[in-house]
Amino acid sequence: MFMPSPHYSSKVDQKARLLAAEKLKSHFEKLVKDIIDGEEPKLIIPKRTLSNTIFDSKRKLLLLGSEVFERRFLDVHEARKFMQTLLMGKIIYEALINNEYPTIRDLYYRGKHTIRFKSYKGKIEEENTWDEQKESDSVLRDIEVYADLLREDMLILSKEKGKVVGDMRIRSGDDVIDLSKMGHGAYAIEPTPDLIEFVDVDAELVMVVEKDAVFQQLHRAGFWRKYRAILITSAGQPDRATRRFVRRLNEELKLPVFILTDADPYGWYIYSVFRIGSITLSYESERLATPEAKFLGVSMTDIFGEKGKKPYLNESERRNFIIKAKKTDIKRAQELLNYEWFKTEKWVKEINLFLEKQSKLEIEALTGKGLYFLIDTYIPTKIQTKDFIE
Amino acid sequence: MFMPSPHYSSKVDQKARLLAAEKLKSHFEKLVKDIIDGEEPKLIIPKRTLSNTIFDSKRKLLLLGSEVFERRFLDVHEARKFMQTLLMGKIIYEALINNEYPTIRDLYYRGKHTIRFKSYKGKIEEENTWDEQKESDSVLRDIEVYADLLREDMLILSKEKGKVVGDMRIRSGDDVIDLSKMGHGAYAIEPTPDLIEFVDVDAELVMVVEKDAVFQQLHRAGFWRKYRAILITSAGQPDRATRRFVRRLNEELKLPVFILTDADPYGWYIYSVFRIGSITLSYESERLATPEAKFLGVSMTDIFGEKGKKPYLNESERRNFIIKAKKTDIKRAQELLNYEWFKTEKWVKEINLFLEKQSKLEIEALTGKGLYFLIDTYIPTKIQTKDFIE
Repeated sequence: MFMPSPHYSSKVDQKARLLAAEKLKSHFEKLVKDIIDGEEPKLIIPKRTLSNTIFDSKRKLLLLGSEVFERRFLDVHEARKFMQTLLMGKIIYEALINNEYPTIRDLYYRGKHTIRFKSYKGKIEEENTWDEQKESDSVLRDIEVYADLLREDMLILSKEKGKVVGDMRIRSGDDVIDLSKMGHGAYAIEPTPDLIEFVDVDAELVMVVEKDAVFQQLHRAGFWRKYRAILITSAGQPDRATRRFVRRLNEELKLPVFILTDADPYGWYIYSVFRIGSITLSYESERLATPEAKFLGVSMTDIFGEKGKKPYLNESERRNFIIKAKKTDIKRAQELLNYEWFKTEKWVKEINLFLEKQSKLEIEALTGKGLYFLIDTYIPTKIQTKDFIE
Repeated sequence: MFMPSPHYSSKVDQKARLLAAEKLKSHFEKLVKDIIDGEEPKLIIPKRTLSNTIFDSKRKLLLLGSEVFERRFLDVHEARKFMQTLLMGKIIYEALINNEYPTIRDLYYRGKHTIRFKSYKGKIEEENTWDEQKESDSVLRDIEVYADLLREDMLILSKEKGKVVGDMRIRSGDDVIDLSKMGHGAYAIEPTPDLIEFVDVDAELVMVVEKDAVFQQLHRAGFWRKYRAILITSAGQPDRATRRFVRRLNEELKLPVFILTDADPYGWYIYSVFRIGSITLSYESERLATPEAKFLGVSMTDIFGEKGKKPYLNESERRNFIIKAKKTDIKRAQELLNYEWFKTEKWVKEINLFLEKQSKLEIEALTGKGLYFLIDTYIPTKIQTKDFIE
């Protein structure tokens, strides 16, 4: 085994490194055996194609199916990809045993170089390992599914926007952090949320708000104390770590998750990413998605009302606050109607009402009505009357 | 005085509210006196124009000059702006005494409505208080300079990207937070950093990195422990709170501040915002800028070397890592040459070398060479040999 470097590294990371390095090694060792046995080295990798992506309607998750493909060394169409896959495997393995924390951009730079070789005609030729990060990212994904290790398991880091506060203690690295003692600031979630240990929690729900500024307001006004909530912001489109953190709160602590966004297709898409994830990256959705997440609002019926429901805005507020939908919003809304998980009665009604009214609303239009309107009226009424969309 | 609402509010906030509400009130009370005295109500406001912006070469700060203008009620060209200013003053005052925490977007929504009035011809006409946030933001700025209160002093919140870790304890709200006990995560700075109290600190320098992902790497590998640094990321263009926090670390704790960005005009501009701030918003620069901030790198001579200095990249690394500058980069670089604080020998050399080579480099190209190259070689060598630009 490798020796830990003299550099600082938390015990949790040291353990995670060992695990990932061993698993990665065992997956690639098969190639050495192939060569010793005089066989062609090849990798058998699960297919990441749309046709091999299954929506499991029971677990409500996008999953990879059972189809695989062979990546062969002695195939002129595959040799380049084969080399790239092994190069990426080598770089990640070395990073793991050298106590490094690369990003996917680092991995691209680390592998980027020119190979000089003699062609079968005897000419010296040159070929780049890869030219764009798109290529190195693609083989990284292949390795994730091949070795059944997400990038986070291999201590590949990334920028991270998610924040959290609430009555909860977690262990991260070598520290225990009290998320109820963050003052006016917040705890910025780490890029490897699977390494977090939930020490104890006193909460009844998880409230995720799209906008960081709204998070700041709710936090400052004591929202999470009043409603015993774990308050989270994704600061726009949620990144992987925020999604995984929310999923773990739901799955392991059985806390219901409510998502609060602007009333527009962009907000619905944020909800969709939390709930289902990306269609083209189903292998990560299995661990990152929260199928139980509920869309709390702002919904179209919150704005316009419906039979048996009074709207939260009056006529004059609607006139002042509503923003006209753009063409791209309309197009996005029509696309969402095609997603399996938006084909429910409530969602179809919501999206059709949007297409009819061609209107959207920012959450700030509600805080504009008063922050305590949002905290004391809107949110509790929505939750108590179960006026959310699943 | 007003009664505090039953909602949660930290003691620090309660005190800040009182102070801001009183100050705001006293500035506008003059108008009531004017009216009672039968005089025309008018506001005398410092000019926020470029011509009234002075670069104080001793303090190395952009400051507002002494020019003022009158905003009069009985002037047909001024009446609308006069009304907007009073409307904004009223909204902010009400938010303060009602324990609210508006954002600038909220302020826009709160004030946005249609005024119906009888014109001098006896006709009923309509006019909007404001149509765009640009208008409400502009009067907010007027109030900031008029009442000598930054928006943060009036508890106007905003989204916030800055993060910090290091051997330091701060008091924020009702809590004391140990910034050395954040595990793999970080402390997300509050939007009102003037309300933070520095309890104690054990550090020798402040290292600000442009990129959140690089911050994650340095943090995780123990950079701040090894170099007794307060490690901060602005996650791109720095926001007001991150700038103010960095300034306070420099001014109050006398810690030198080093800025680490990509080697490109965008990175230099980030440095410029930290150091000087925006030319058009000089009134905020007086409190947000850190004139002592040093540009650590990545510099053009780090890439290409110069007489007496070996570059950090070899020929083959340059070939693999360098990115060709775009037209917009060239244009931006030429603009920067016009700024007063870029007219120093080192900066002119840096920018001219960029214009000659038309090349830029991402910081990830250095972490691509190895994270410990960045930590153990690049950063300490740059600091020890004073190879930075002021």
